[in-house]
Amino acid sequence: MSNFQVIKQHRQVRLGLLQTAHGKIQTPFFMPIATRGAVKYLHNDDFKLLGNQIILSNTYHLYLKPGLDVIKKAGGLHKFMNWQKPILTDSGGYQVFSLKHLRKINDQGVAFKSTYDGSNHFFSPKKVMEIQQILGSDIMMVLDECTPYPSTYEYAKASQELTTKWAKQCKQAKKKNKQLLFGIVQGSSYKELRLKSAKDLIKIGFDGYAIGGLAVGEPAKEMYKTLDVVCPELPEDKPRYLMGVGQPEQIVEAVKRGVDMFDCVLPTRNARHGYLYTNLKLSKSLKLTYKILRIRGEKYKKDLSPLDKTCQCATCTSGYSRSYIRHLFSVNEPLAMRLTTIHNLYFYLDLMRQIRKI
Amino acid sequence: MSNFQVIKQHRQVRLGLLQTAHGKIQTPFFMPIATRGAVKYLHNDDFKLLGNQIILSNTYHLYLKPGLDVIKKAGGLHKFMNWQKPILTDSGGYQVFSLKHLRKINDQGVAFKSTYDGSNHFFSPKKVMEIQQILGSDIMMVLDECTPYPSTYEYAKASQELTTKWAKQCKQAKKKNKQLLFGIVQGSSYKELRLKSAKDLIKIGFDGYAIGGLAVGEPAKEMYKTLDVVCPELPEDKPRYLMGVGQPEQIVEAVKRGVDMFDCVLPTRNARHGYLYTNLKLSKSLKLTYKILRIRGEKYKKDLSPLDKTCQCATCTSGYSRSYIRHLFSVNEPLAMRLTTIHNLYFYLDLMRQIRKI
Repeated sequence: MSNFQVIKQHRQVRLGLLQTAHGKIQTPFFMPIATRGAVKYLHNDDFKLLGNQIILSNTYHLYLKPGLDVIKKAGGLHKFMNWQKPILTDSGGYQVFSLKHLRKINDQGVAFKSTYDGSNHFFSPKKVMEIQQILGSDIMMVLDECTPYPSTYEYAKASQELTTKWAKQCKQAKKKNKQLLFGIVQGSSYKELRLKSAKDLIKIGFDGYAIGGLAVGEPAKEMYKTLDVVCPELPEDKPRYLMGVGQPEQIVEAVKRGVDMFDCVLPTRNARHGYLYTNLKLSKSLKLTYKILRIRGEKYKKDLSPLDKTCQCATCTSGYSRSYIRHLFSVNEPLAMRLTTIHNLYFYLDLMRQIRKI
Repeated sequence: MSNFQVIKQHRQVRLGLLQTAHGKIQTPFFMPIATRGAVKYLHNDDFKLLGNQIILSNTYHLYLKPGLDVIKKAGGLHKFMNWQKPILTDSGGYQVFSLKHLRKINDQGVAFKSTYDGSNHFFSPKKVMEIQQILGSDIMMVLDECTPYPSTYEYAKASQELTTKWAKQCKQAKKKNKQLLFGIVQGSSYKELRLKSAKDLIKIGFDGYAIGGLAVGEPAKEMYKTLDVVCPELPEDKPRYLMGVGQPEQIVEAVKRGVDMFDCVLPTRNARHGYLYTNLKLSKSLKLTYKILRIRGEKYKKDLSPLDKTCQCATCTSGYSRSYIRHLFSVNEPLAMRLTTIHNLYFYLDLMRQIRKI
């Protein structure tokens, strides 16, 4: 009856299989981000070559534009986006909280103004469930407060308690269908709060557990310390999702601590700015090395080699040179962003494939 | 020995075959524009699906960025762009003349300042030949002055004479290689000057003849009148190229008058602004009908049909709906421009395919 099986385990590293309404996903995996229903510069055909198993999309953005009526009419987000594989949606909480001056939080949820037209909206736990159920995502997230870093103990405690309360309300609002619902462990950098958060959420019972409030400005060591605290507390037969993380080495470190799922804007955002991940090497013991190439650099002006000779992505194997891609950036041609987005996402997805081969 | 054969002729309509250094091209044909070495938002793989036989690129832009040293190092424009099929390059004249306050013309050529860094440059007939020979385009264009509309007879006459003089110098500067060189008929709206221009160019002898200075603000009827004057004067065994034209109906009217080659920014530029060509119908007698769809329109908000049910392009046959594409435009997602560019170019290329089937 469980949607998740660990197939193989090396120390804390787990290789598993997650069953969703739109198919099975091999874990650990990385989710490219389709904020507004599209991964910037990419086409669905590109995903066939990239081989990603799932994408992440943002409830907050889709709720405001195109709006739920449009997605409902299309028959859900999969049909609207023309994407047949699994989708994870966040709850919208993260985006709403980052509005700062445009939102007001109370224990019922969060009121906010649309950045498009100033209209007033309210996200309650029940509401974000209704939205995600209309979107029809395979994996839904509970409404949480992503606790800012650093936070006082008092703030973090109240925030963790609120997240747990909302998580319970989300669970209660969930229809019986094939959609999975994940709880989110908060508690900032306080071990006690993290343990309490995990324990309370497990008691409510979710299909998976996310670890939130990390990669928000804290040192990497602190992130790893929190994972060392939280992961052993989480059920072995449920997937674990480290939200918004991160750099390749952070992903590897988290996998070593038993995390199964990742998402991050870094590969796509860096691609658009011309920062490229190259020379991926991952040993059987998960020792990772790689390089960052800044394609706008003068030294690549006449460099006829591909972005990365060791890379098998569609950009690197199709005859596009560093010289040409540098030129495309220098004249602001959209093809630059497209070729580099393909490359960087391939790097991340290939990293996950290599992890899954150990 | 001729590079061009008319295979079939219906009245003035010619179906032919143009041999270039990078393969044969069926005429009449349309050239998508890769101004800076890329068709905006498209990938070379897209061209396989679109089936375009040739692209056009701009000498002026490539000369300034990335610069000739870069393209020389790559082994020419084909290798630099990673495009193995034919390329036509303009002479750069059109772009330079449109700089207005940044250029000075004399009978030796035209001096201009770079819009990138203000540096000084000079395009002479010999220089634009040197550049295009480094680019290695399959079809090169002579340096010409695109006579503005309207022009006085005196201005148009001087301009036509200058273009003819430069054309001769270009021919003299041409190396013996497989690159083709086209002359450009000018003469504004003056029949006498157009005839003189054609006659003088034919005397010099070119691999093909372009008709320039049209689609520069004159009424369509005047364009057709000029074609009626010029086309009968041009050699039957050489291809004829109507530069910068145009709307689908203008292309059809020009084909009816014996034109073989076209280029225009309209399909790609209109795509980026959400104006889409749909419902192409072309009768055996070349009667054309089609519609323009403004995808940003409110009425498409929940329209789940493809952009054009009658269209076989990759966008219309892959499950992307009007509703989704409208959403992508409303949130400024690059995928919007990509999907619509594919659609509009397919329309133009399909129009040419249908013309070639009559």
